[in-house]
Amino acid sequence: MQKQDIPTYLKAITIRDPSDLHSIAEDIKKGMILILRVTPLAQKDVEKLRKVVEELYVIARNSNAEIARLGEERIIVAPIGIKIWKPDYDLK
Amino acid sequence: MQKQDIPTYLKAITIRDPSDLHSIAEDIKKGMILILRVTPLAQKDVEKLRKVVEELYVIARNSNAEIARLGEERIIVAPIGIKIWKPDYDLK
Repeated sequence: MQKQDIPTYLKAITIRDPSDLHSIAEDIKKGMILILRVTPLAQKDVEKLRKVVEELYVIARNSNAEIARLGEERIIVAPIGIKIWKPDYDLK
Repeated sequence: MQKQDIPTYLKAITIRDPSDLHSIAEDIKKGMILILRVTPLAQKDVEKLRKVVEELYVIARNSNAEIARLGEERIIVAPIGIKIWKPDYDLK
């Protein structure tokens, strides 16, 4: 560990259902970096996906977390202290 | 910023050529979190991709960084202090 004793976790998971948002919100509050794969939900129900993404943006904003799409498949949520940088606008 | 004054950057970029490795190595040394999209290189030259991935693993090891595949398309490199956690083994 360089600057802090407790590591920051980068958790890569799949959102399969809107009910997954509860534990995701907990992880965001804990300060985890999340990489959320949304493809299965997108294939199942686009309307549900739209609502989940909207809710994610609200959860992130309330936790002062940054949020960004990573191509069509994934969403990144980064806690305070982590800045998302997309230098080439080429994240598809 | 919570635990540190200087933010950690999470940089999402595309590797298009083995020559990109130089600046990527610099970013890893700076302690950035990298999400590297390898699909264009995979489509162009699988052998080059294989070598680039091998070199990435060496660069990461030399910087005490963690490295993991994120599906077929991307590779994550996380500096010391960031732990990659893949709870569901479902990163495709």
